[in-house]
Parts: sequence; structure tokens; C-alpha cells
Amino acid sequence: MLLATADLIDRLSYPSVTIDAVARASGVSKSTIYRHWPSRQALIFEAYTYKTNKLTIVPDTGNAIEDLRTYLMKLAYCLNFAGAASTVSGLIVDAINDDEFAQLYRGTLLQERRKSLLVILVKGQRRGQIRKEADLGTAIDAIYGAVHHRLLVSGQRIDEPFVAALTDLALRGISTAHAQSRAK
Amino acid sequence: MLLATADLIDRLSYPSVTIDAVARASGVSKSTIYRHWPSRQALIFEAYTYKTNKLTIVPDTGNAIEDLRTYLMKLAYCLNFAGAASTVSGLIVDAINDDEFAQLYRGTLLQERRKSLLVILVKGQRRGQIRKEADLGTAIDAIYGAVHHRLLVSGQRIDEPFVAALTDLALRGISTAHAQSRAK
Repeated sequence: MLLATADLIDRLSYPSVTIDAVARASGVSKSTIYRHWPSRQALIFEAYTYKTNKLTIVPDTGNAIEDLRTYLMKLAYCLNFAGAASTVSGLIVDAINDDEFAQLYRGTLLQERRKSLLVILVKGQRRGQIRKEADLGTAIDAIYGAVHHRLLVSGQRIDEPFVAALTDLALRGISTAHAQSRAK
Repeated sequence: MLLATADLIDRLSYPSVTIDAVARASGVSKSTIYRHWPSRQALIFEAYTYKTNKLTIVPDTGNAIEDLRTYLMKLAYCLNFAGAASTVSGLIVDAINDDEFAQLYRGTLLQERRKSLLVILVKGQRRGQIRKEADLGTAIDAIYGAVHHRLLVSGQRIDEPFVAALTDLALRGISTAHAQSRAK
């Protein structure tokens, strides 16, 4: 079911991925689908997350900095699939307008999506590559936030130069070492 | 007109700020309003930007790092007004669904909104407080992106600890100096 839905997401825009369409594509009845997913949105989110998780698996090289770069390059690749912008923006908009889906989205599914990134960063902290006092939750807000900002707001491309600049920003920040030591 | 609209934004949710409501509140005819703004969205965006620009004026202290911190604290204050989350998410959703508004939003209004932050960062670059090679456009994507991520997606509070963590992240990044020198 997740595979059939993920396939539809790749080919169609968000509003076209209905429970009817999934039932037709998978040969499973609508009532069976509804037994496993409370809503169309929940199914689409899980299918999208399932597909994105599979495509963004990053082998642990022992260097969290390299792994972060690789993860973001793979994520950028996923987001340039035909249906991705439409799906991500559709889900966010639905969560804004529907409290029940918002709770599901925030409580379980969003956490799951953030985990891929968190795992890389926590390993880096253990190895002394990521600062111990860095607030990883905020770093994830900023990384996903920057990507979503391009996808939803500015419409700019999510390409290799952007990913390189975002990785550099996340790792090193924008201030000079001189300014940092003065600000302490 | 902008003042009357900004006042309505503070008191009402986004869908309630109609051209009718603005006409009633300001005593100006609807046809006059439409002569100056092509749509309800354009008027709301300009009024919101006008108000936010006024509330986020940061005196130039000569220290871009302190000025960035002050700017983000003021922005957080604005976003905690009653109508702010509803307005910002409403405008973003409308831009996603309406190509004409999206062009206006991206082409002129969004640039205007990014400028406040860019001015601070460019001055910092000139003074040697911000790295010359830092990609300021991406930094602005990440800063606004993180704020919008909380506002629209995760629903977490935009409060002082978050602003402090975001400023720290933007300035210093998350990696240790050791990891940075090894990655060069």
C-alpha cells in the first residue's frame, strides 16, 4: 500500500492522490485502507516518509560532517521529484487547516522525519565533531526550515550549490572567529 | 489604510481581514482600496510587512552579532501577536495556491521582508564580523525558515530560548573547531 501510494505521489500532484486512486492502483478495498490509516493525509504522509527514508539512508562514515552533507544532497534529490513540492506543501497546508491531522503530523510523523537527521548529529556529538552545547533541535528546525522555505515560499531551486551553502552554514555559522571570541 | 489593516490583522484571524472589513474600519471605499492594491492578499502582506518593519527596527550598534540577536528577539515578539501565525501561514498558503499572488509575493514583497536582515548581515561582513564567503541568502533562508517551521509545521513556541539557540546556530554553526579544521 505504501509502495503504491509512493508511486502515485511521484506521478501525480497532491490533490490527485486520493484513497480511490490508491485502491485502484493497489487492488485493495477502500475499507481495508481506512482500517490502517485514519485519513488520506496520514496515508500520504507515511508513504512519502517511507520513500524519503529509503532514499536518504546514509552509511555511517564516522564523520558526521560528511554524513550531514550526504544526507542533504540525497534529500535535495528527493525533493526534485515531480510530486514532492506539491506533496510537502499540501501536507503542511492540511495540517494548518485540520487540527486532528496536525496532532498526528506533529506527534508521530514529523518526529520520525526529524530522526534521520538527529541520528547523524547525535553521533557527531559523541565523537566530538559536533559541539556538545549546540541545540540540535533548533539546527534541525533551521535545516528543514531552509529547505521548506525554498520549496514553499521563495520557490528557489533546491540544488547542489544551495545544499553546499546550507551545510557550510549549519556547520560553521556565518560569523568570523574573531567576532565569536569578542562576543563571548 | 495600512494602519487600519495592520490593526485588523492584530485583532482578527487571516480569513476575517477582508476588503469589506478594511473599508468599514478605514472609511475608505472598496474601489479606492482596489485602485492601490490588486488583491486582498497584497494589501494584507503590505500591511503586515509595514507593521513588522516598524517593530523590528534595530539601531546599528556597530556589532552585527548583537544586532542580529536584537532583530530576532523583536521578530519573535511580533510573531506572538494574536493574528501573526494565522496571517503568515494564510499568506504562504495563498501564494502556493495562487500563481499571480505568488509572483507579487516573491518578486517584491518577500525581497522587502528579507532586506531588514540582509542590511544587518552585509554591514557585519564589511566590518569583518561576518565571514566574507558566508552565503547570506542561504543564512536568511535558514533563519526565516526555522521561524516559519515552528510557526507553520511544528507549532513549537517562538520564544527567547529558541531565538538564543537560533542566533548561536547562525553565528557559530554546530561543528567543533577541531572538526572544521579537519574538514578543510
